[in-house]
Amino acid sequence: MEPPTITLTSEITVRLVQQMGGDAMVVAAARVSTSGEEAAKWVAAPAEENYGLIRYLMKQRHGSPFEHSALTFFAHAPIFVFREWQRHRVASFNEESARYKRLEPVFWVPRRGRAMVAVEGYTAARPKFRPLERDDEYEAVIATMREQYRAAYTAYLRLNTVEGLGTSHPGIGKEVARAVLPVGIYSSCWVTMNPRALMHFLSLRTHDADAKYVSYPQAEIEEAARACERTFAVGWPLTYKAFNECGRVAP
Amino acid sequence: MEPPTITLTSEITVRLVQQMGGDAMVVAAARVSTSGEEAAKWVAAPAEENYGLIRYLMKQRHGSPFEHSALTFFAHAPIFVFREWQRHRVASFNEESARYKRLEPVFWVPRRGRAMVAVEGYTAARPKFRPLERDDEYEAVIATMREQYRAAYTAYLRLNTVEGLGTSHPGIGKEVARAVLPVGIYSSCWVTMNPRALMHFLSLRTHDADAKYVSYPQAEIEEAARACERTFAVGWPLTYKAFNECGRVAP
Amino acid sequence: MEPPTITLTSEITVRLVQQMGGDAMVVAAARVSTSGEEAAKWVAAPAEENYGLIRYLMKQRHGSPFEHSALTFFAHAPIFVFREWQRHRVASFNEESARYKRLEPVFWVPRRGRAMVAVEGYTAARPKFRPLERDDEYEAVIATMREQYRAAYTAYLRLNTVEGLGTSHPGIGKEVARAVLPVGIYSSCWVTMNPRALMHFLSLRTHDADAKYVSYPQAEIEEAARACERTFAVGWPLTYKAFNECGRVAP
Amino acid sequence: MEPPTITLTSEITVRLVQQMGGDAMVVAAARVSTSGEEAAKWVAAPAEENYGLIRYLMKQRHGSPFEHSALTFFAHAPIFVFREWQRHRVASFNEESARYKRLEPVFWVPRRGRAMVAVEGYTAARPKFRPLERDDEYEAVIATMREQYRAAYTAYLRLNTVEGLGTSHPGIGKEVARAVLPVGIYSSCWVTMNPRALMHFLSLRTHDADAKYVSYPQAEIEEAARACERTFAVGWPLTYKAFNECGRVAP
Repeated sequence: MEPPTITLTSEITVRLVQQMGGDAMVVAAARVSTSGEEAAKWVAAPAEENYGLIRYLMKQRHGSPFEHSALTFFAHAPIFVFREWQRHRVASFNEESARYKRLEPVFWVPRRGRAMVAVEGYTAARPKFRPLERDDEYEAVIATMREQYRAAYTAYLRLNTVEGLGTSHPGIGKEVARAVLPVGIYSSCWVTMNPRALMHFLSLRTHDADAKYVSYPQAEIEEAARACERTFAVGWPLTYKAFNECGRVAP
Repeated sequence: MEPPTITLTSEITVRLVQQMGGDAMVVAAARVSTSGEEAAKWVAAPAEENYGLIRYLMKQRHGSPFEHSALTFFAHAPIFVFREWQRHRVASFNEESARYKRLEPVFWVPRRGRAMVAVEGYTAARPKFRPLERDDEYEAVIATMREQYRAAYTAYLRLNTVEGLGTSHPGIGKEVARAVLPVGIYSSCWVTMNPRALMHFLSLRTHDADAKYVSYPQAEIEEAARACERTFAVGWPLTYKAFNECGRVAP
Repeated sequence: MEPPTITLTSEITVRLVQQMGGDAMVVAAARVSTSGEEAAKWVAAPAEENYGLIRYLMKQRHGSPFEHSALTFFAHAPIFVFREWQRHRVASFNEESARYKRLEPVFWVPRRGRAMVAVEGYTAARPKFRPLERDDEYEAVIATMREQYRAAYTAYLRLNTVEGLGTSHPGIGKEVARAVLPVGIYSSCWVTMNPRALMHFLSLRTHDADAKYVSYPQAEIEEAARACERTFAVGWPLTYKAFNECGRVAP
Repeated sequence: MEPPTITLTSEITVRLVQQMGGDAMVVAAARVSTSGEEAAKWVAAPAEENYGLIRYLMKQRHGSPFEHSALTFFAHAPIFVFREWQRHRVASFNEESARYKRLEPVFWVPRRGRAMVAVEGYTAARPKFRPLERDDEYEAVIATMREQYRAAYTAYLRLNTVEGLGTSHPGIGKEVARAVLPVGIYSSCWVTMNPRALMHFLSLRTHDADAKYVSYPQAEIEEAARACERTFAVGWPLTYKAFNECGRVAP
């Protein structure tokens, strides 16, 4: 069997599939409390005039008005990123299934500048890293990963194909063969969240030294979270502004 | 103090505020399992060709593909309806607040044909009712309710206004005065649900003798649920068809 | 028909039905991250030595270790309290049903010292109240409520009994008759929450001027929340201490 | 560097850590609807006399009474099992973290009798397998997996240790090095669920030809689910009986 061609990449892709709502919907939903049916008129009103209300909701953690909007993202990332992402339960996920589909040979490697060598002050609770200094050191890391990824994918194909093991049967099922695939292999996933849940995700999966509760996420999930954040900032600019002004704690 | 003018009604209003997604989004989300990134092409494809897939998802209770859509409703209904509705936790609610707003004097009365007299075979677990036979009996019910509603609203205003109690203070706070308001008073609420949660709501709050698990909801929440159902049937016709064919159990 | 005897009360009762877990379980669950199977040994270890870990989890908002415990409460409170409580979706509720059971004539009135007259600086968003100054003013409030509650319950009985309306039928169903009952009537409810959800409930339904995000709950739900808090403080003393030290935001 | 010693196993371990509640608690919680405060007396009553009630709740899908109990499990299983398990959102998880801890070299291999060769009628939607017929074929599968697991763990250690790459730095961080570890490596996790959520998990992750909605789970998650099921059957025998009698759909 030919050694398979594999692709190495550091890219984590997050694309908006669809969205519903916006800052005006936050205002209108909140106005139901005080205006009942008439709240509908704020759906089409400029939300800017109501920034004070949005900020008040955020500050006092009246969270429900931020739930009448939704965003669906397509994400392409290594399995170890989805492992973390899917721990957030107020969200909807549909991911590529290695039971049903042969996974593509696309694997993650760290970028050249990725901090990954422990420095003084490192603790498990708060990992502190620096990038590798020398190019040859970085190359050695990549070479080790590449070799291992290729071997894993080769074993996967051997297990899952007729020719693989040189035996009488047509290969063992994908759901068993996948056991040898590494968590650095890429997968695809759709994620739908409302802005409240998204802000909670951002609060835990981005690092901001000025946040009221500072988080220390792994760089790769932060990369995915930051991509979501940029989309969110464009579609819900006032909510996003209030989120930052109030310490990046989800309401 | 003048006796207040009150409004009696039997109407339960549910209006669509916004929606996102559709049957094609169910198909595309499900295709992520088997097609990864390429699933995006089903977003714009005619969903009809994929009815088999939608039905398969419903039958095998693969529920997550039905979560990448959303509907926001405005509902106007008595408090006793929202009491039941808000027990459904996979949904987002913003309701008129009697802490912040003086509630309007709009009160619920049963329709003429509303089954409400217990008949043989009635049990608490499965209430069986018939409509009132005579018009004068119905009128007596309405008169009792009208009188009581008016008295309640009068007391509410007395408690909450300067003149109310003939005292030195400007009336007691709305949050205290509201204690005398009946659960038959109308309130307004925004509700956002995804189709999976909506189907669960429908399965428990509508009565269908052919359902795999038959429910016996109160008529008024069923009226609200049926209004949601009509909107859902228009926007997600294939999903709705599969829901009915597979026994009206949410996937 | 005799006027019914009704009971007026200001008491809100919350009693612990059962509980599971404790601070040691928080520590053991967190240690799974770093110790895998060996984490079990912390189940029976004194949690005091691990207060630093509990505080770290709280501060960095690692919330999941606080979910492997549970508390079930019995609560007896007016409907308007349960209306607020049941908006908290990460909890399990079973409440007395006015569809199935005739509610008891027990009604809520404010305590003598309950702040309820608006003072300067009052806004809907941040209601500021003072108690009534004069006893006769308080008596007038109570008298108005008592009269209204009794009338409501009388109407309820008339609607729901054979003699009630002097007609041929046996009274209309409880589910319809209840429409005239006020939200100040008492109900009973079981509530099961885990400590993480309970801390979220406390953060929003108690007022603490030193909290990182200050809430302004209605006095009656705060009374219920404070009763839960006392039970929690006894059973999870280290978690409770960390919750307060870290600004009363649920992890 | 010496090749590491690795352990191969097919065992999936699920152990009860703690539990709260039982059938009597289901009855008592349900009785709150019809008996309010007096429901407490059923907490200590023999639940057997109330099997009819439990069955009625199950059949009519009144789910909330099944939420006032809880079970915490310790599970030791391959990552691909936890990937599926953690998609169930009404549950609490704390898992071993490969960011914080070096994972142990314990890897999953299929049992000899595990059906894993596709047979006629196989489709992605409903995989149909048979076991390998010949011992040498099975040995070839195990040998491929063993070799690949050992190579993966060797690469992991090389990446994560001083000596590993023969360079000046102390090895790259665990959070990066883990990318080469396969999803067949074992992890440990605590899972807390209530009986309602557990029944939902069982309905989707066990295969029962008599269920109203038949599921086709992967064998390994079914093994974990069946272990949970045995514990559940012992602690909640009446609930479990009703679950089976009513078609294994969670209420």
